[in-house]
Order: sequence, then structure tokens, then C-alpha cells
Amino acid sequence: LDYQHVQVPFEITLWIMLASLAKIGFHLYNKLPSVVPESCLLIFIGLIMGGIIYGLNDRSPPVMDSDIFFLYLLPPIVLDAGYFMPSRPFFENIGTILLYAVVGTIWNVFGIGFSLYGICQVKAFRLQDVSLLHNLLFGSLIAAVDPVAVLAVFEEIHVNEKLHILVFGESLLNDAVTVVLYKLFRSFCEMPTIKSMDIFAGVGKFFVVGLGGVLVGLTFGMTAAFTTRFTKDIRVIEPLFVFLYSYLSYLTAEMFHLSGIVAIIACAMGMKRYVEANISLKSHTTVKYFMKMWSSVSDTLIFIFLGVSTIGENHEWNWPYICFTVIFCLVWRALGVLVLTFFVNRLHVNTITGKDQFIIAYGGLRGAICFSLVFLLPDFRRKKLFIAATTVVILFTVFIQGMTIRPLVDLLAVKRKRESAPTVGEQIHIRFLDHLLAGIEDISGHWGQYYWKDKLEYFNSKYLQKILLREYDQPKSSIVLLYEKLERKHAIELAEAGQLGHGPSHPSLLKNNRTVITDKKLEDTLNPDVLENIQEILARNLYRIRRTGPAYNRHTLPGETEPVEHTKEILILRHRSL
Amino acid sequence: LDYQHVQVPFEITLWIMLASLAKIGFHLYNKLPSVVPESCLLIFIGLIMGGIIYGLNDRSPPVMDSDIFFLYLLPPIVLDAGYFMPSRPFFENIGTILLYAVVGTIWNVFGIGFSLYGICQVKAFRLQDVSLLHNLLFGSLIAAVDPVAVLAVFEEIHVNEKLHILVFGESLLNDAVTVVLYKLFRSFCEMPTIKSMDIFAGVGKFFVVGLGGVLVGLTFGMTAAFTTRFTKDIRVIEPLFVFLYSYLSYLTAEMFHLSGIVAIIACAMGMKRYVEANISLKSHTTVKYFMKMWSSVSDTLIFIFLGVSTIGENHEWNWPYICFTVIFCLVWRALGVLVLTFFVNRLHVNTITGKDQFIIAYGGLRGAICFSLVFLLPDFRRKKLFIAATTVVILFTVFIQGMTIRPLVDLLAVKRKRESAPTVGEQIHIRFLDHLLAGIEDISGHWGQYYWKDKLEYFNSKYLQKILLREYDQPKSSIVLLYEKLERKHAIELAEAGQLGHGPSHPSLLKNNRTVITDKKLEDTLNPDVLENIQEILARNLYRIRRTGPAYNRHTLPGETEPVEHTKEILILRHRSL
Repeated sequence: LDYQHVQVPFEITLWIMLASLAKIGFHLYNKLPSVVPESCLLIFIGLIMGGIIYGLNDRSPPVMDSDIFFLYLLPPIVLDAGYFMPSRPFFENIGTILLYAVVGTIWNVFGIGFSLYGICQVKAFRLQDVSLLHNLLFGSLIAAVDPVAVLAVFEEIHVNEKLHILVFGESLLNDAVTVVLYKLFRSFCEMPTIKSMDIFAGVGKFFVVGLGGVLVGLTFGMTAAFTTRFTKDIRVIEPLFVFLYSYLSYLTAEMFHLSGIVAIIACAMGMKRYVEANISLKSHTTVKYFMKMWSSVSDTLIFIFLGVSTIGENHEWNWPYICFTVIFCLVWRALGVLVLTFFVNRLHVNTITGKDQFIIAYGGLRGAICFSLVFLLPDFRRKKLFIAATTVVILFTVFIQGMTIRPLVDLLAVKRKRESAPTVGEQIHIRFLDHLLAGIEDISGHWGQYYWKDKLEYFNSKYLQKILLREYDQPKSSIVLLYEKLERKHAIELAEAGQLGHGPSHPSLLKNNRTVITDKKLEDTLNPDVLENIQEILARNLYRIRRTGPAYNRHTLPGETEPVEHTKEILILRHRSL
Repeated sequence: LDYQHVQVPFEITLWIMLASLAKIGFHLYNKLPSVVPESCLLIFIGLIMGGIIYGLNDRSPPVMDSDIFFLYLLPPIVLDAGYFMPSRPFFENIGTILLYAVVGTIWNVFGIGFSLYGICQVKAFRLQDVSLLHNLLFGSLIAAVDPVAVLAVFEEIHVNEKLHILVFGESLLNDAVTVVLYKLFRSFCEMPTIKSMDIFAGVGKFFVVGLGGVLVGLTFGMTAAFTTRFTKDIRVIEPLFVFLYSYLSYLTAEMFHLSGIVAIIACAMGMKRYVEANISLKSHTTVKYFMKMWSSVSDTLIFIFLGVSTIGENHEWNWPYICFTVIFCLVWRALGVLVLTFFVNRLHVNTITGKDQFIIAYGGLRGAICFSLVFLLPDFRRKKLFIAATTVVILFTVFIQGMTIRPLVDLLAVKRKRESAPTVGEQIHIRFLDHLLAGIEDISGHWGQYYWKDKLEYFNSKYLQKILLREYDQPKSSIVLLYEKLERKHAIELAEAGQLGHGPSHPSLLKNNRTVITDKKLEDTLNPDVLENIQEILARNLYRIRRTGPAYNRHTLPGETEPVEHTKEILILRHRSL
């Protein structure tokens, strides 16, 4: 037996296997996921495993390594989040998200830091040796909402899109603020005296860290898109580039002390559009599948490790400090959301309701990022107290808040996400309105969201697409692109469901049949290919809308009309209109 | 700048990126791949990079770590090979493959070892200190044909299926023999005296190492199949299990000093059938795609590293020894193939031709496995000589033989692989013949290949499928299964090509049309679902055969008949026959 030789890969594989099996077990009983969030259960499994390891070895189980967390477990989750980020609601609410992420986080850091310092002055608690700087440092790591925890809980409760993007976007973008404040306070703790210069430098760093991350991410994203131009003959390694470039963007950003999370999100959002157009359909399925798989496993491992690391003798249980930490985290977040939303609502027509504000405040879950940061603290006397407080805050938010948020959403009747995808008609209207609003903004001289969006779209179709896309001939009309996308999606669904015949496809069959000879005549009279193409698109889409639209119809009962009837009707209509 | 923090993942990512970009560059010019095999070019890139590193640092570039090779680079390639192994030709030729792999490799080891010992006795070469055991040890590592190198070259030359499986199967299965002989001679080198007992123990080990590997692999493969029964609600982690279990089988086998390669092949071949039935279509695409991607990158990295590691001062250039090694490798392999094939041809009707024998002998490429094994040798005086000889043999076989084998195949007019996939008709005939032969063997009391195959199939449908498959109702007829497989494949092709309409699928259209009203009547008279099902299958398949079969037809010119004509004709025929 030669265990040592294979130890490293063997143990990693076993951990991943455990995580995957835990996931299967969790989904095996349908009742469980509807009561307890997955994250709670995974932490619970981790706690049990930690207890077993502790009981057997009689020493603390190994703590989750911060390096492993930041270098290997976090990037897949953030990549997945960035790649599948719904870009429209994100950019529509970018101002509000940034306000919550930047101002809100700073508010929380200083609020929690100063009030905990006040608690430390109470003699009965015996905490006088914890300085203000240490309290602020602790505040900086405990204030940030965790994207992993937020994703895990919010994915299951299906609140409306805007609410979701507000909480989730905040949790992702506050990384830049957390990185800066944490490193700032850490270096302040080690400095003998602090000059006012240092504080100004710290403020300047916000912009460097955040915008630098965006720049690094976009650079790698564009390079990735450009690389996939040349993979036509070797489709099989296409998915690799998506992963390699986004990981490189994360690592490069971390290397220069920029925000890796911001970088990888910028990279993923930047490249998605072009990569999707360049790579084959199978490659894209692989990319999507593997991203989901990877992030899902990382997520599981993080929660299990969180549980395992909780057990042990790393904690100093000073209960007043710990309890006040939990209370201040809740209070300052609630206050922050209230105050910031007050200003946001004054500027916008589409306001954030009171219920939504409550869910935003209540959904401020803490997770593995705080946990890793607290272990990265330099050794000092009260480190164990901070570890204990962080652990309790995480467990409190994930267990108590995570488990009660779903009943609360039901109780308050918070607006839910619409289940059905938007119809083609709706999508066309949205696009039309975008153009209209861009025009209005242009005429009125107001450089708003739509104006910039239009300019960006122009820049994209004029320059970027020519460089980054392989099959770039002429800018196709966006309605054709949209149609192609829907068509492809539908084809895959059909293939999956196995409802596909070996026979010739629909149009060729129609052409060869006597009953629809009108179609043939039509084609003879209208030779230009483009027109035929558009007609085909419209004919099919109209039919599709009827099916996916509301079932109510003044003349027919739902399900009465046959699909063929639709097609015929469209043909007749088309014929008449000419 | 904090490079050290991200160094490990950053450098790994950069190496993989280099490998991928090299692959893209190689395929960018279409002429290149048709002249030079990819492996040669990659080694060449590696040589250049090694030269640059050597020139800059003035010391030998880092040598490929044997651990990295055996634990991380080799498994993906072998998994890919095992998973996509064409099982029918493999099992049909299993006897011949095993003969080449076991007896052939032993023949080569002892042939090369003893003749090199003879060379060492020539005083002029100054090699008298190389003992017989050391020569045999060297023979054991240099004799084995390398699967990675063979795959890389044979994938490009498209020889006939039997020839391909003979060379490729041998290169995979000789691992067990190589492992045993290498470890045996290594331990003999360190022993003071060798007892005859040890030699017998060594012979016994062959069976333990080989069969143990098969057992470990099958155990993990069945567990994997069983696990995928329960992944219905969490499709996204399905692909993971394929990778995790096969990797675990490899590591476990290595841990117990069994053949990891044999284990992973047994695991992949064992689980493929059941996993494919249990997991979703998208998961399966991801599995296939990722396997290909991973093995392709590993393969690239191996050849680049091979080039990099060649440069340096690890070599002792004793040219007589090196030249004779190359000559003996060629001569003994050629002799071995001739002798073994003589016996094989006496037992089989379907003999191996002289041309095929030449290609088998000439295709015995050496690669990275030898290279890693020679670096794993314990330190002794002549290790650098062995390294030099191995390097030259690898470069000679990959460059000279690898580059000339394609012209030789053209020159000798070796039978090529048929390009088109077998038609359904052919497949049905093959299956029918299998059953017939199994019956004949059973009656005549001859327990041959078909007898065992039939028994295994029985065992599979009676027990294994019930345990391992999720949706197991009744054993479907194999023709239905085959049809379903073809149907699915066709659907994906259609979806990829975008030839799919939104309209109703083919059969529903037919039913609602007046011209094919006969079809409806037919269905009314023949109610049972099963019959209708079979008819549909036959109707479609017959039509399909006509299209993919030879274009010649006594009554029609090729391309004259329309697809719909076919369908109608089939319907009329069916109607008459009832």
C-alpha cells in the first residue's frame, strides 16, 4: 500500500465526492429542500464531520485554508455568477447597486466598528484592550454581504428580478470596498502613527481597486473573445479558453491587489456575447454546464468546510461582544438600507417598496469570505474573539435569517419572479422602446442610461464585432438575431424531448404537398431571398406567440385549434396581404 | 505586486494556455497538419522553449515531474481512450491484443535487455560496468509502446479499424506487464541475491496486477453507474461523477501497485453504457466534450514538456549504446510481431496481412511513459546514459517513424478505415449474425467468443440493468434501442445545422393531411401501440437506408426520387403487405 504517493489528489477527489453525494442526498427527498436551505444543511453536515474528526483525533479539525478558498473555491462561483448575470436589470439598476455596495458598506463598516468600540468601553465586559482600529478592522470584514451565501438562499426563494439583482449585485461589488478597507485597517494596525495622507491615499484606492479590476477583466474578456475567433478547426478546446482567461483575469487582479471578484465579473460579462457567437453550440453547452457544475461543487465544499472549521478550540467566547456584534450587524444594515433607499426613491420613478427594503436588509447574509478574512488576520491577543464573533454572525445569518426568509417572503407577499420567459412580442417592444428612449434622450440633450447604451451598441457593431467575431459580414438586424437564438433554443428542446422525426424538416414537406401549393406560387413571385427569410421568420413567430401567449381567445377555447390550423391561417393571411 | 501568492495556479494556467494556443496555431494553417504529426511539432516547440530557458538561466530547464505525469497528465488521456474505445473490435481481437501486449512485451524486454548486455561486453565501448540486471531494467522501460504517442499518430492516418485496435489496444494493455517487470527488476537491482522464489512471485504478479486493475476499475465503474441513478433532480453535477469515479479507480489501483491504466479503462468501458442511459443528453455532451478537451490538453502538455526536458545536461552521450538501443528496439519488435502473428494467423480465418504486420511493427512508438520511468530510476552511475538513450529512442520513433508512417501507409496502400458509418441494415445484420453464431456455438458445445458474449448480455439484461438503470421497465428490443440512439443523434445534427422548424414534427403533419389518409386508416385497423411503434421505426429506417446506402438503383437515377416519394412508397408497401 502506497498511500502517500496518491494522497493529495485522492483526498481532493474524496472531498469533492463527498460534496457531490451530499448534494444528491439533499435532493433525494423532495420535502427537505422546501424547508431548509441547502447551505444550512451543508454546514450541518460539516459540523457533524468536524465533530467526528475532533472526537477521533482529540484536536481541532483542519481549518479551511484561506488560500484554497480565495484561489480555488471562490473563482468558479463568481465566474458562474458573472457569466449568467442578467445584464439588463443589472445595468438598469447599476446606480442603486453601487450606492448600496460602496456607501452602504462603508456605512456598515464604520457603524459597526464605532459602536463595538463603544461596547468595549463598558468595564464589566473586560474588553478595554480592543482598540478602535481593531474594531474597525473587524467591522470591515464583518460588514460585507457574502455573494455565495446570498446566491444560495436567493436562488431558492424566487423574489422579483429587481430585488434579486439589488441584493446580489451589492454582494458582488462590495468586494472592492471590503478589500480596500480591510487592507487599509490592517496596515494601519501595523503602523506606529497614521498620517492624514494615508487616509486620503485609502480613499483614492477605492477607485484604483474597483476600476482597475474592471479594466483587467475587460482586457482578458476581449482577448478571450478574440482567441475564440481562431478555434474553428479545433472546436474541442473552445470551452477551455473561457475558463482559462477568466481565471487569469482573477489571478492577475489579485496579483496587483485589485478586486479579483470585480475583474472576473467584468471578464465574464464582457466576453459572453462574443464567445457565444464564435464557439459551437456543443462547446457552449459544455461551457454552461461545466460552469454550473463547478460553481455548485465549490459552493458545496465551502459550506461543508465552514461547518468543519467551526468545531475546535479557536474561539474565545466573550458573549457580550458576540451578541452586540450580531445586533449591530442587523441594526446598521437596516438603517443603511432605509437611509440609502430614501435617496434612491427620490430620484427614481420606479421606487423600492417597504417590503423590498425589508428583504434587502434581511437578506444581508454573511459567509465564507468573512470567515477566510478573519483567519488571515495577523496574530494578536483578541484574534480568537474575532473568530468566535464571525462564526456566530455567519451561523446566525445563514441559519436564522436564511431559514426564515422564505416564510417571510410568503407572509409579506413580496412580488415574485414571473415564471414564463418573455414572448418575442414583448422582447421586440422592449427593444423598440430602448431605441425610442435613446432618441428622446438624444433630442432632449439628457445623457441618460439609454443614450449611453445606444452609443455602446453603436461602438460594438462598428468596431468590436468586426474584430472579435469570426463570421462577421454585416450587422444583422437584432430581430433576426433574436429569432435565431429562439430557434436554436427550441431545436435543442425538441432534440432533448425526442420529438423529432427523421423526415425532411417542415418547410420542405410543405413545399412538396399539394394542399399548400399556394406557398410555392408565393415564392415564385417573390424571389429575393431576404424577403422570403423575413416572411418565414414572421410566419413561425406569429404561430409561436399564439402558443406561448395567454390561453384566452375570444373565438376559440384553449387547445381547440390544431398547430396545423395555425400554420395554414398564417399562410392565408400572408397570401391576402399581398 | 504579490506574485508568490498566485504563483502555482498562475503558472499552471499559463502552461495550459500555451498548450492551447499552440494547438490553435497548429491548426490555423491547413497544410501543416497534413505533413507533420502534431506530436512532432509540439516536441519541437518544447525544444525551443527548453533552449530559451537553458540560454537565459544557464542551467538545465526543469524536467517533467514523474508524479505530475502519472497523477495528473496521464489519467485524462487514458480515460478518454477507454471511454471512446470501440468495444466491438476490441473484444473481437482481445486474444490477439493480449498476446501482443503480454508475450510481445516480455519478448521485447528480454530481447533488448540481453542483446544490449551483449553490446556491453565489447571492450571498445567501455560499458562493462553495466550489469545484466540494469540492462533488463532498461529493457523493461524502453520496450513498452506508448499509448499517448500511438494515439497521436494513428488518429491522423486513419488505418482500418482492426489494425488500429491491435496497435492501440496493445499500447494500453502492456502497462500491466511494464509495471510488473519494471518494479521486479528495480527491486532485483537492490537485492543482494535473487532467489528462484522471487522470479516465480514475479510471474504470479502479472495476473494480480492486470486482473486486480480490471477488478478495481469495474467496481468503481459499477458504483458510478449506480450513483447516476439518483441524479435526476440535480442534473448539473452528473458529469462530475464520471470523472470522479474513474479518477478514483486510477488512484486506488496505483495505491495498491496495480495497473492504473488497466483500471481506468475497465472503469470507463464498464460504466459507459449505463451512465449514458441514466444521465441527460446535455450532461453526456458535457462529459464527452470535456473528456476530449482534457485529454487533448494533457496530450499537448506532455509533448511540450517532453521537448523542454530533453534540453539540458542530464545526458551521457555514449553513442554505440544509444545507436544499438534504437536498432534493437526496431529489430526485436519486428521479429516479435512476425513470430506472434504467425501463430495468430494459424488460429484465425481473418488473418493479419503482411502489410498490416509491417505497420504494427513500425507503429511501435515510444513516448512519455518511458521518459517518466527513466527519471524514476534510482540513482546509479549510468542513469544519465539511460536517460540519453531513452530520449533518442523517443525522438527517433516520434519524429522519424511518426513522420514517415503516413507516406508508407499511402505507398503500401494499407486498407483504410471506411468513412461512412454502418447503415441500420448492416447493424441489424451484424446483431442477427451474433445471435445465430451464439446459437451455433451453444449447439456445437464450443464455448467461443459469441457464447460468452451472449451469456454476458443475458446477465446484463437480467440483473445489471435492473440495479444500475433508473428507468428500467422491461428489456427493450435492441433494435428499438438502436433506433432511439440513431434518432437522438440525428436530432442533434439537425439542431446544430439549424434545419429545424418551429412547426409540428413530421408524423403529426402527415396525420393531419389528406394525401396520406391511408396512414390514418392503417392506424385505425391496427390499434396495438407496439405494432405501430415498430412500423414507424421501420418506415423511417427504410427510408434512411435508401439515402445513406449506395446511390445505384436499377429503376431510378440517383437523386431522382424525392424524400416524400420514399415515405409514400413505404406506406403503400406496408399497406399492401397487410
